[in-house]
Amino acid sequence: MFAQDSVSLTLLQASQSEAFQAVQSDFLLNSSLWVNIALAGLSILLFVYMGRSIESSRAKLIWVATLLVPLVSISSYAGLASGLTIGFLEMPAGHALAGEQVLSPWGRYLTWALSTPMILLALGLLADTDRATLFTAITMDIGMCVTGLAAALTTSSYALRWVFYGISCAFFVAVLYVLLVEWPRDAAAAGTSDIFETLKTLTVVLWLGYPILWALGSEGFAVLSVGVTSWGYSGLDILAKYVFAFLLLRWVAANEGVVDDAGAGTAATGAAPADD
Amino acid sequence: MFAQDSVSLTLLQASQSEAFQAVQSDFLLNSSLWVNIALAGLSILLFVYMGRSIESSRAKLIWVATLLVPLVSISSYAGLASGLTIGFLEMPAGHALAGEQVLSPWGRYLTWALSTPMILLALGLLADTDRATLFTAITMDIGMCVTGLAAALTTSSYALRWVFYGISCAFFVAVLYVLLVEWPRDAAAAGTSDIFETLKTLTVVLWLGYPILWALGSEGFAVLSVGVTSWGYSGLDILAKYVFAFLLLRWVAANEGVVDDAGAGTAATGAAPADD
Amino acid sequence: MFAQDSVSLTLLQASQSEAFQAVQSDFLLNSSLWVNIALAGLSILLFVYMGRSIESSRAKLIWVATLLVPLVSISSYAGLASGLTIGFLEMPAGHALAGEQVLSPWGRYLTWALSTPMILLALGLLADTDRATLFTAITMDIGMCVTGLAAALTTSSYALRWVFYGISCAFFVAVLYVLLVEWPRDAAAAGTSDIFETLKTLTVVLWLGYPILWALGSEGFAVLSVGVTSWGYSGLDILAKYVFAFLLLRWVAANEGVVDDAGAGTAATGAAPADD
Repeated sequence: MFAQDSVSLTLLQASQSEAFQAVQSDFLLNSSLWVNIALAGLSILLFVYMGRSIESSRAKLIWVATLLVPLVSISSYAGLASGLTIGFLEMPAGHALAGEQVLSPWGRYLTWALSTPMILLALGLLADTDRATLFTAITMDIGMCVTGLAAALTTSSYALRWVFYGISCAFFVAVLYVLLVEWPRDAAAAGTSDIFETLKTLTVVLWLGYPILWALGSEGFAVLSVGVTSWGYSGLDILAKYVFAFLLLRWVAANEGVVDDAGAGTAATGAAPADD
Repeated sequence: MFAQDSVSLTLLQASQSEAFQAVQSDFLLNSSLWVNIALAGLSILLFVYMGRSIESSRAKLIWVATLLVPLVSISSYAGLASGLTIGFLEMPAGHALAGEQVLSPWGRYLTWALSTPMILLALGLLADTDRATLFTAITMDIGMCVTGLAAALTTSSYALRWVFYGISCAFFVAVLYVLLVEWPRDAAAAGTSDIFETLKTLTVVLWLGYPILWALGSEGFAVLSVGVTSWGYSGLDILAKYVFAFLLLRWVAANEGVVDDAGAGTAATGAAPADD
Repeated sequence: MFAQDSVSLTLLQASQSEAFQAVQSDFLLNSSLWVNIALAGLSILLFVYMGRSIESSRAKLIWVATLLVPLVSISSYAGLASGLTIGFLEMPAGHALAGEQVLSPWGRYLTWALSTPMILLALGLLADTDRATLFTAITMDIGMCVTGLAAALTTSSYALRWVFYGISCAFFVAVLYVLLVEWPRDAAAAGTSDIFETLKTLTVVLWLGYPILWALGSEGFAVLSVGVTSWGYSGLDILAKYVFAFLLLRWVAANEGVVDDAGAGTAATGAAPADD
């Protein structure tokens, strides 16, 4: 378009095409992405169908938050598959693969900052919690994802990669505290304990898998290969996102009345009951 | 400052200066940016003046959300005019300009993720909607803008550019559904139908122009030149942002009582009515 | 991992390692970062301890918002110390150091967009304000930080650096208006004037220091060296973040009842009182 020599952005784009081709040529890696694109697409269609008759504002809010999980996920995986949000990073001295180019799917960590708050929002509304713990869970969760992204992108120092990892885990502890200590009480009071306990256990167990996988994967101690690491994340995503969302939506669609009653007494996300 | 050879960032900055000079040397392109900076500046001054006597919390919230539209816009256009948020991208095989450097105003798509939620917040408050549909409209809108940004930045594969375009349009359908089906009902109940219908029609018609322009413009099928594409966006922005905001604020300033009454029964953005 | 020649990202990473080494070799600069990492870490531990017995939802929300300030801060300073969010930028013609590589701690400006809204949220809740002014303060504050980031990153034109600086200051004026005019009235009505006035004065005076420091520092008129500029920001951060947060939390922990009473009449952040 402009007759000029844009050497700089050409270099940047080269890395996108490199990443795209590297993904294309690695069956294990490539399939770990496209299987999720397909499943996220199916989940979106299914969840729209499941929510078609939800009427009340509160149940609808849970539904939309849950629907956003596969919507963010399909966008995220398209970014990974295109190479747009993947990069090759040279690991610093101290890393098992020091000096080598290691594929970092940094777009995963970035988009988790958008999808995981939706999971917590849906869980918090289900437990009919107050805005203070909802705010805590969501902000700490975003802190966890953003510092996880920083851990992945830090290549100047091996020690500082683990410093960021540690900060990210500290944020995670705050999320776990809310999930394990605060919300079960609220859910019991709201009469949604049964489904909440199931989804809480699913979430806590699966979410613990992510930091473990990062530590064992190619960006951490490099015990696992890039393809296996990627399938690890993809498998966790399938369970923690689509299966989780399906179980939640199936319950909400069948128990809209319970959700509404729970919200009548107190009002989460920013509303203080006027007559308390 | 530091006596060293920083070849890397120098290259990155080169692209900013290249973009700045390319903009400067293209009158059509340059004027499409600076006209908007001027109009956004005038809008800010006018809107501050128009809102000077707004008292009630609810009307003030609509006013501030509307005022943020030209505030984000002037920042966005300054970013484009400086070359900071513009880049030359080499289009992939399959694109009409494959192999050529095409100017991408990616900063537009990024900042729309900040300005368009303000438009929807103002419209939703005007319609006195509940938090579920407001949350839907705003999150789907952000999804639309971010995946639109991804479409523009993807250069590894022509097909994946259109995959992102398709995902962005799917988010847009959700926004349109809220605007065309959900909120008109709420506005009728709130007694703000007249102004809401005007602004809704203006928004829906103009917002449909953006994806059409992207498809016809230099980043899509490349039927239009960079300068014409840029003027297309700038023209749409003038109508969908400043004219829209002016009409909305003029009505709110003159009908503060109606806005307040509408908010008395139910309470949008996060408040569940305590006695419903 | 992949046997290929990734020249592009290697260049990008080079800048991170360069920045990391430049920081390491400059005692003044390096100490300005690590002192803050240490103080932020101590603050986090202290604030968790101070908030251990806070029960009410409203006081807890203030506590968590305040706790997030050092949490964001420690992440931000780790990013600076690792070189991840620092870059060398070649200043444009007109700048005192034109053509030289100047260290820009752009990560500071980016993370302020996350930490300063928490300060304002805590102050707004303390003043028991309505959602309109809280929304105003937080959105204008984010606008201030993001356009400040743009000012730092613009290297194509000296004039446009100051255009962004001016836009950022305009956003700041809106924040100051809320702090100095709107919230004191609310705090008086809520019975929290004493502590609010102290914290307001502390915040306004210290926050005025940041734009002055930017103008005098290496990125502005370059009157101050990189190390002195960095210690300036670090000193302001210590007072405006950790000392501020300590004073606020000490008061909240001792006056939980006052905070609750204030919130009973009206309800900030998104809740309109149903019977007003």
